[in-house]
Amino acid sequence: MSQPTTHTPLDAPGSSRRGFLRAVGLSGGAGAMFATMGALGLAPTAHAAGTEAPFRAPSASDFSLTGRSAASVVILGGGVAGLATAYELGKAGYRCTVLEARDVAGGRNFTVRGGTRQEDLDGNVQTARFSDGVYFNAGPGRIAQWMNTMDYCRELGVELEVFSNTNASAYIYNEKAGMRPGAPMRYRTAKADVYGYVSELLAKAADQGALDARLTADDKERLLEFLRDFGDIGGRVAGDPAASWRYTGGQRRGLAADPGGVGEPGTPLGPVPDLSTVLASGVGRYFSFEFGYDQAMLMFQPVGGMDAIPRALARAIGGRRIQLGCAVTRVTDRATDVVVEYRDAGGRTRSITADYCVSALPPHIMARIPHNLGGEVNTALNALRPSSAGKIGLEYRSRWWETDHDIYGGITETDMDLAHIWYPSNGFHSRRGLIVGYYNTGANADAYTALSPADREKRAVAQGVKIHGEKYRTELAHSFSIAWRRTPYLESAWNYPTGGQTIEDLTQLTEPTGRVYFTGDWLSHAVAWQHGSFSSARQVVTRLHSRVMAG
Amino acid sequence: MSQPTTHTPLDAPGSSRRGFLRAVGLSGGAGAMFATMGALGLAPTAHAAGTEAPFRAPSASDFSLTGRSAASVVILGGGVAGLATAYELGKAGYRCTVLEARDVAGGRNFTVRGGTRQEDLDGNVQTARFSDGVYFNAGPGRIAQWMNTMDYCRELGVELEVFSNTNASAYIYNEKAGMRPGAPMRYRTAKADVYGYVSELLAKAADQGALDARLTADDKERLLEFLRDFGDIGGRVAGDPAASWRYTGGQRRGLAADPGGVGEPGTPLGPVPDLSTVLASGVGRYFSFEFGYDQAMLMFQPVGGMDAIPRALARAIGGRRIQLGCAVTRVTDRATDVVVEYRDAGGRTRSITADYCVSALPPHIMARIPHNLGGEVNTALNALRPSSAGKIGLEYRSRWWETDHDIYGGITETDMDLAHIWYPSNGFHSRRGLIVGYYNTGANADAYTALSPADREKRAVAQGVKIHGEKYRTELAHSFSIAWRRTPYLESAWNYPTGGQTIEDLTQLTEPTGRVYFTGDWLSHAVAWQHGSFSSARQVVTRLHSRVMAG
Repeated sequence: MSQPTTHTPLDAPGSSRRGFLRAVGLSGGAGAMFATMGALGLAPTAHAAGTEAPFRAPSASDFSLTGRSAASVVILGGGVAGLATAYELGKAGYRCTVLEARDVAGGRNFTVRGGTRQEDLDGNVQTARFSDGVYFNAGPGRIAQWMNTMDYCRELGVELEVFSNTNASAYIYNEKAGMRPGAPMRYRTAKADVYGYVSELLAKAADQGALDARLTADDKERLLEFLRDFGDIGGRVAGDPAASWRYTGGQRRGLAADPGGVGEPGTPLGPVPDLSTVLASGVGRYFSFEFGYDQAMLMFQPVGGMDAIPRALARAIGGRRIQLGCAVTRVTDRATDVVVEYRDAGGRTRSITADYCVSALPPHIMARIPHNLGGEVNTALNALRPSSAGKIGLEYRSRWWETDHDIYGGITETDMDLAHIWYPSNGFHSRRGLIVGYYNTGANADAYTALSPADREKRAVAQGVKIHGEKYRTELAHSFSIAWRRTPYLESAWNYPTGGQTIEDLTQLTEPTGRVYFTGDWLSHAVAWQHGSFSSARQVVTRLHSRVMAG
Repeated sequence: MSQPTTHTPLDAPGSSRRGFLRAVGLSGGAGAMFATMGALGLAPTAHAAGTEAPFRAPSASDFSLTGRSAASVVILGGGVAGLATAYELGKAGYRCTVLEARDVAGGRNFTVRGGTRQEDLDGNVQTARFSDGVYFNAGPGRIAQWMNTMDYCRELGVELEVFSNTNASAYIYNEKAGMRPGAPMRYRTAKADVYGYVSELLAKAADQGALDARLTADDKERLLEFLRDFGDIGGRVAGDPAASWRYTGGQRRGLAADPGGVGEPGTPLGPVPDLSTVLASGVGRYFSFEFGYDQAMLMFQPVGGMDAIPRALARAIGGRRIQLGCAVTRVTDRATDVVVEYRDAGGRTRSITADYCVSALPPHIMARIPHNLGGEVNTALNALRPSSAGKIGLEYRSRWWETDHDIYGGITETDMDLAHIWYPSNGFHSRRGLIVGYYNTGANADAYTALSPADREKRAVAQGVKIHGEKYRTELAHSFSIAWRRTPYLESAWNYPTGGQTIEDLTQLTEPTGRVYFTGDWLSHAVAWQHGSFSSARQVVTRLHSRVMAG
């Protein structure tokens, strides 16, 4: 299907600056031209803050300076990396065809709604019966502000809202540390106690001179001032070190009855646990999550479901360029083109020939497909080990977490095998809502994967009841669960290099083999994030375009 | 205008349970009836979690058990407390009239949009020229999850979205501590450094035995494990205490270049400042803000502007019951009714007679209005001192804070007189947006109040440029500023008791004087919050209704 070349006329009208650039482009090649454009302040960058490697999308006008023309490209896999490759190449007129084995584009960016049907590799069939407006992001669920995913949302017109990654009103439930059913702890209470005691301990040590080797007198006074505020602790009691700098609780812990009108000053939450109890509870282990560069609030999500991103990409690419239900069966790299055989949605074997091929398949899936790229490619692909992760979406008939618990979004952390519970970041106060009843990885995910969907629900609900009470069971309407290792054509939540390698070691995959390129979040430093998929796709697009431009 | 009484018929059809309740009501009074309903599980509470004093809205059916009927009530002031009073009493058929001196209901809940005109007490006239969809919440801007404001939003159908009260990507700019223009620090960087050094110091002290009197061996190991994770610090280096537990930075600080594809692992932000520098920078003083019971994320705002709340209340009350442009000039409490004189929107003097009066005016404004309630009432009203606060809304032609700084919402903290800068929590990636360029109180607010609106803008922008660069000036489209002390009929941001008193001491105001009641956030334990207004209104409604029910 190598389509006829469309030449952008070299004699198109242009300014003298453009004429200058054309001369540079003809003599020095694309690289020299881009460098010159950068020096003139003309080269657009993906990111005005200048904190990322600049990406310049290919453009049809690039060819007017070179005498070359856009090529045809077949892209294997319509996940975010594959779609982004087609989208960016399409800006310069590349004729892309995306082959996607599933019946929907987006890959792991998969949003389940009423009517979504999926059969896994163990024969479990689920059809979601969610209500109108209720959705379940089975894959990625959040975006950090610095990620290029935000830039793509802006460029594609995908509307964003806050994803509630942390919430002081959400719970911590550490069963193994002895918390009892019905008695989880609010995040705000755990933080107040841990920060209070940490401040008390450090203030005592500093005030008693234990850190004089490390602190000047000014340092010490500033540290004590900080700790009083940070831990909400008392001050120095002259002549009584034991009574100094004490943490004794306070309103930051939350209240048993909220402040209201006259006569209603608010009721304290109850006795403050002692230091040993707080340390043994293990609640502090969850605090650093929100300090992560990729997890710190504010985080964002597309309005209406994460699949707004692949949908917008698909619209921009053009639906006819994306062939759904097409599973690749063989890839043959040849001297002047690439032949890709596949089974189409009707079960017929077909083939497509293009100037170039970009494989955006999960690496362990690509390794299984017959090809002539050589054994070293497969060794490298198989060095990227697939990982387990699972999620369950629980639709409830009422939003009892809002009305009964004052929890509007956020994440409850547990030491149970369900790991995390996510409350919805959207539809506040609406009639129904969807809780993510588990989001777990590794052995915990494997344990749920081994169960039938009905048993996964049963197990998740039995644990959730310990935190939220019986409504967690009685208000449940439907559920839908995903087990990524057993999801056809994906079979992994994400892939990391094994054996002490980093992605920088897998040079077999970062360079093309013949006319075949590789892309995916696994070929980035942001594995498991759409940012990684976009970053990798941009690299492949830049390299492929440079090659075509260089002839 | 004491309207004719409408009797709810005593012979309305009812179940036997209702008959039983009626008998209790007739013999034991309303209090006994409510207690019985509670025991039967029938009495609705405002809050299913049971953490607030229960509020039961009056209902027309209450009267069917007593032979009494709803009364007429004139309410002075159409702020949130006044509207809430009319709204709740209206549920039981009370004939309420709200007199509001301004041309819009809501009081300090005031949202400025294109066309909003305001003249202040110094003769400054401003007419907002904001673009379509751009708004400025000049008064309250955020709601905590536990506040009854959330319940009113649910009941009234006011749609909510996250208010971004904290953001790791927002800045801290402490000019007095030596930060230079163009070099603010991100919140995430400040936190990483402070938490890192705090963890290092406490780990060293604990590991060297300085806290052995306070920590068991188990405590100590748990504490060290927590600190390693919390501060992202190194571990124990055998035989080298100085090298142990060291904080040396890390990705939590943020990055100069973000991680991307292969060859793009991310670039560290630069050298980590030493401990003394971090302590002297004063950045840590802002951290405890987000631990506050009333400020901890997640926080919320109504979609489209905070005035969605008074608008919804006004719709529920019925527009004809709210008379705008009506300034109260005299209140006369009489044996069987109350007479309120006022100047209407046309400048004519009018009067209204009702069974009861509820003053929802700011206390210092009420104290100025001639009345016959006695000097002690005025002494109490004047004990609530008005406070200064100001805000400026800056509309920009582009959302450069998103594209250039990766800041999507949140608050930048400064030690300059503008205090806080708020980035918008809505309209991400849209064309324009509104920044709150200052939100200050006390002397800082007084300083801006003394300026003309044009000079307020100039001063705020000159400071913002230090943090954000020239776009803070060049992209500015329009501004609108509010100085609450000089805003007609409000003349205060909020009122707190003076002279060491608490609201519990001002019994002159918590009890009615004759037929006149008082309400407002200032009569609550949540001053300056709409929650306080609603809580106080509920108390007045409950008391007034009980009195009418008791005859």
